[in-house]
Amino acid sequence: MEMKDIVSLASIIIAGLTIAIGSIGPALGEGRALAQALSSIAQQPDEASTITRTLFVGLAMIESVAIYCFVISVILIFANPFWNHVVSQAGK
Amino acid sequence: MEMKDIVSLASIIIAGLTIAIGSIGPALGEGRALAQALSSIAQQPDEASTITRTLFVGLAMIESVAIYCFVISVILIFANPFWNHVVSQAGK
Amino acid sequence: MEMKDIVSLASIIIAGLTIAIGSIGPALGEGRALAQALSSIAQQPDEASTITRTLFVGLAMIESVAIYCFVISVILIFANPFWNHVVSQAGK
Amino acid sequence: MEMKDIVSLASIIIAGLTIAIGSIGPALGEGRALAQALSSIAQQPDEASTITRTLFVGLAMIESVAIYCFVISVILIFANPFWNHVVSQAGK
Amino acid sequence: MEMKDIVSLASIIIAGLTIAIGSIGPALGEGRALAQALSSIAQQPDEASTITRTLFVGLAMIESVAIYCFVISVILIFANPFWNHVVSQAGK
Amino acid sequence: MEMKDIVSLASIIIAGLTIAIGSIGPALGEGRALAQALSSIAQQPDEASTITRTLFVGLAMIESVAIYCFVISVILIFANPFWNHVVSQAGK
Amino acid sequence: MEMKDIVSLASIIIAGLTIAIGSIGPALGEGRALAQALSSIAQQPDEASTITRTLFVGLAMIESVAIYCFVISVILIFANPFWNHVVSQAGK
Amino acid sequence: MEMKDIVSLASIIIAGLTIAIGSIGPALGEGRALAQALSSIAQQPDEASTITRTLFVGLAMIESVAIYCFVISVILIFANPFWNHVVSQAGK
Amino acid sequence: MEMKDIVSLASIIIAGLTIAIGSIGPALGEGRALAQALSSIAQQPDEASTITRTLFVGLAMIESVAIYCFVISVILIFANPFWNHVVSQAGK
Amino acid sequence: MEMKDIVSLASIIIAGLTIAIGSIGPALGEGRALAQALSSIAQQPDEASTITRTLFVGLAMIESVAIYCFVISVILIFANPFWNHVVSQAGK
Amino acid sequence: MEMKDIVSLASIIIAGLTIAIGSIGPALGEGRALAQALSSIAQQPDEASTITRTLFVGLAMIESVAIYCFVISVILIFANPFWNHVVSQAGK
Amino acid sequence: MEMKDIVSLASIIIAGLTIAIGSIGPALGEGRALAQALSSIAQQPDEASTITRTLFVGLAMIESVAIYCFVISVILIFANPFWNHVVSQAGK
Amino acid sequence: MEMKDIVSLASIIIAGLTIAIGSIGPALGEGRALAQALSSIAQQPDEASTITRTLFVGLAMIESVAIYCFVISVILIFANPFWNHVVSQAGK
Amino acid sequence: MEMKDIVSLASIIIAGLTIAIGSIGPALGEGRALAQALSSIAQQPDEASTITRTLFVGLAMIESVAIYCFVISVILIFANPFWNHVVSQAGK
Repeated sequence: MEMKDIVSLASIIIAGLTIAIGSIGPALGEGRALAQALSSIAQQPDEASTITRTLFVGLAMIESVAIYCFVISVILIFANPFWNHVVSQAGK
Repeated sequence: MEMKDIVSLASIIIAGLTIAIGSIGPALGEGRALAQALSSIAQQPDEASTITRTLFVGLAMIESVAIYCFVISVILIFANPFWNHVVSQAGK
Repeated sequence: MEMKDIVSLASIIIAGLTIAIGSIGPALGEGRALAQALSSIAQQPDEASTITRTLFVGLAMIESVAIYCFVISVILIFANPFWNHVVSQAGK
Repeated sequence: MEMKDIVSLASIIIAGLTIAIGSIGPALGEGRALAQALSSIAQQPDEASTITRTLFVGLAMIESVAIYCFVISVILIFANPFWNHVVSQAGK
Repeated sequence: MEMKDIVSLASIIIAGLTIAIGSIGPALGEGRALAQALSSIAQQPDEASTITRTLFVGLAMIESVAIYCFVISVILIFANPFWNHVVSQAGK
Repeated sequence: MEMKDIVSLASIIIAGLTIAIGSIGPALGEGRALAQALSSIAQQPDEASTITRTLFVGLAMIESVAIYCFVISVILIFANPFWNHVVSQAGK
Repeated sequence: MEMKDIVSLASIIIAGLTIAIGSIGPALGEGRALAQALSSIAQQPDEASTITRTLFVGLAMIESVAIYCFVISVILIFANPFWNHVVSQAGK
Repeated sequence: MEMKDIVSLASIIIAGLTIAIGSIGPALGEGRALAQALSSIAQQPDEASTITRTLFVGLAMIESVAIYCFVISVILIFANPFWNHVVSQAGK
Repeated sequence: MEMKDIVSLASIIIAGLTIAIGSIGPALGEGRALAQALSSIAQQPDEASTITRTLFVGLAMIESVAIYCFVISVILIFANPFWNHVVSQAGK
Repeated sequence: MEMKDIVSLASIIIAGLTIAIGSIGPALGEGRALAQALSSIAQQPDEASTITRTLFVGLAMIESVAIYCFVISVILIFANPFWNHVVSQAGK
Repeated sequence: MEMKDIVSLASIIIAGLTIAIGSIGPALGEGRALAQALSSIAQQPDEASTITRTLFVGLAMIESVAIYCFVISVILIFANPFWNHVVSQAGK
Repeated sequence: MEMKDIVSLASIIIAGLTIAIGSIGPALGEGRALAQALSSIAQQPDEASTITRTLFVGLAMIESVAIYCFVISVILIFANPFWNHVVSQAGK
Repeated sequence: MEMKDIVSLASIIIAGLTIAIGSIGPALGEGRALAQALSSIAQQPDEASTITRTLFVGLAMIESVAIYCFVISVILIFANPFWNHVVSQAGK
Repeated sequence: MEMKDIVSLASIIIAGLTIAIGSIGPALGEGRALAQALSSIAQQPDEASTITRTLFVGLAMIESVAIYCFVISVILIFANPFWNHVVSQAGK
């Protein structure tokens, strides 16, 4: 039953690292965009609604990159085709 | 009972590293946004309410990235499907 | 049945790392472009529509780089030709 | 009794590294926000109360990221489910 | 049948890493160019058409570097001459 | 008596590294905040009392992150539950 | 037939890494040049033709560095003298 | 008497690394704060006493982080509980 | 025939890495020079011919560094004296 | 007499690395403070005595961090309790 | 005949790495100098001849550093005294 | 006579690395201070004597950090207590 | 005859790395100085002779650092005392 | 005669690395100081003699750090006490 070990080991390790490493870029990118948005509102209060609308659309786009990582991470834990294959093999 | 060793070992290591590495990006991003918010309030006090509202919505979005990491980390400790499988196997 | 181990192991590890590493560049690049867009709107509100249109076309182009990574990552999990070959071999 | 070795070893190592690595981001982020707050007070003394209020709410949010790390770290030392399982197994 | 293992293993690992590492440069480069484009439009609205035309030609050129990586990555998965050689050898 | 070796070895190594790595962030963050505080006092001497009060509250918050590391480090040396368990086991 | 393994293994690994690492420099360099070109057009619209001409000559020069990498990468996959030697040896 | 080797080896290595790594942050942080203090005195000579007082309180706070490292380092050399335990064990 | 393995292995690996690593410096350097050239043309259109002439001479000089790498890389693949020696030895 | 080897080996290696790594932070920090001091004197010659006095007190404080490293380094070479213990053991 | 393997292996690896690593510094340095030269010509067209003369003398000096690397690299491939010694030994 | 090997090996390696790594910080720090000193003299020629006096006192202080490294390095080569102990042991 | 292997191996590797790593610092330093020289000539054409004279003396001083590396590198290839000793030993 | 191998191996490796790593800091530091000197001469031509005098004294001080590395490097090649001891031992 060694194969299960390897698959579960790899899944745990990679699930964690994927979301850990994958959170660095989006968090920094969103922080930068948010900081600039606040600066722009302070500079041009009349355009606050346009700025916040563009900001939230853009943040959603950046967030989507983080969500790609989260999706892969959750798939590896709860819907891992290799794990399913191994378990079904072992069940036979 | 070797498989338990491997699964618990990997879970402990990755649970810690996930939240540790995953805290760098959000903390820096939030710090940057917060710093800019304070600067903007000082520059445009009349818009303080708009700025703080946008700030807290944005911070929540960045915080969500850190929470993804925390969720994966807690799942690996308390709701690890691979661990449950191993324990139920051993219980048989 | 050792070969399955190796192929599934490699697929899991690389699927996660590909999207994790591949998210850093696009997220930072989009954050920068978005930040500048907000600054430009505040500076030239009359051009808001031109700016946001150019922004979204450009963001889509950067996002495409992240999607290349996501595509390779999903192919490795769900449509891996090497895995299919191995399974079909084993089925014989 | 080898499994205890591995679990306790991993718990000690990761408990320390989690809080060590996890302290870098929040400390730098808080330092940046605090620095900007002081600059803003000097620039706009009349808004000192708004600025410090926003500052402390924001610092608490960043601090929460560090606390996630501390929580995982303390759980690994004092409330480690894998350790409890091992000890209860050995006690049987 | 050891050689298949090695070739498929290497192909999977490198296919993922190639596009992952290769996405960092183009994404950052495009982000920078896009950010400057938006700034230039805000500064000189009358030249918006010239700027966006130059921008998209340039982005295509940078994107081509990312596509080189994607091409090599896809070749390694679906049109790998070494894999074909191995399989044809094994078929003999 | 091998287990004692491992536990004491790991405790010594991690106790040192935790406080060593954990001192980088807080020290840099405090240095930045302090530098800005002095600059602000020079710029707005009348607000010196508000600035220093906010500074010390903020420094205490950053210092708390360093203290988390120190606490974990001291726990690992003087109140290590795994070590106590091992010694009590050996004493039996 | 061990030598084939080694040669094909090395060729796959290096072909991918060469274009992956080799894309970082040119992509960043082109991004920088393109960004400056757009800024210059906005600043001096009358010189737009001279600027874009110089830009494209320069980009071609930078692109040539990326193409060196692509050439080496493709040679290693499809026209590898060491592989040809090995195959012809084995055919004898 | 192998355990002594391990404990003394680890203590020597970590004692040195702790203070070596732990000196980087505080030294840079203090250098930055000191540099700003001198700049502030030059800018606002009348506030020299307030500035130097705040500076020395702040430096002491940063220095405390370095002292945490020094304390752990000295404890590991001269008051190491694990070493005492080992020696007392060996003395029995 | 082990020696052939080693020589061909090393030649493939180094040929790729040489041009990959060697492309970073020249690409960034050329990008910087090109960016400045465009900025200078926009600033001083009358000197466009002098600037572009100096630019292309300088770019050629930087490109020569990349060509050194390409030359070494191609020599290692197609005119490798060590490989020739090995093959001629084996032919004897 | 193996234990002597290990202790002396570790002492030599760590004594050197401690002062080598520990010199980076203080040297950079002092360089920064000194540079600013000279700039401040040039800007406000009348305050030269206050500035140099504050500078030397501050430099002494930063130097103290380097001296912590030097002290640990010299202790490890000339007053190493573990070495003394080993030698006294061997002398018995 | 093992020694030939080692010498040729090392020569190939180091010849490539020397020129690869050695190209980073000169390429970046020349890029910086060239960029500044173009900026200076745009700023002071009358001094174009003095500037380009100084530029080319300086570039030659920087290029000489790259040539040192190229010389060592070529010596290692075509005039390696250790290789000659080995071959002459083997010829005896 | 194995112990001599280890001690002399470690002494040579660490003596070199100590001064090599330890030269980075002081050289950069002194370069920065010197650069600022020259800038200050150009700005305030009347204070040249005060500036150069402060500069040389400060440089001596930074140099002292480099000398700590040099001292440890020379001690390890020419006055190494562990080496003396080993030689005297062997002479017995 | 193993010792020759080791000495020639180490000499080849280190000869290349010494000049490769040693070229980074001087090339960047010279590039910076040269860039500033050109800028200064453009700013103060009347001082061109003083500036170029000081530049070339300074460049020679920086170049001397690169030459130290080249000297060590050439000594290791053509005048290596350890190699001479080994060869003369073998000739006996 | 194994000990000679080890000592000569270590001496060659460290002699090269010491000067290679040790050249980075001084070269960058001197480049910075020289660049600033040229800028200062252009700004204040009347103080050229004071500036160049201070520059050359300072450069000599920085160069001394590089010379420390060169001295250790040459000692390790031509006046290595450990090597002399080994040779004299072997001669007995």
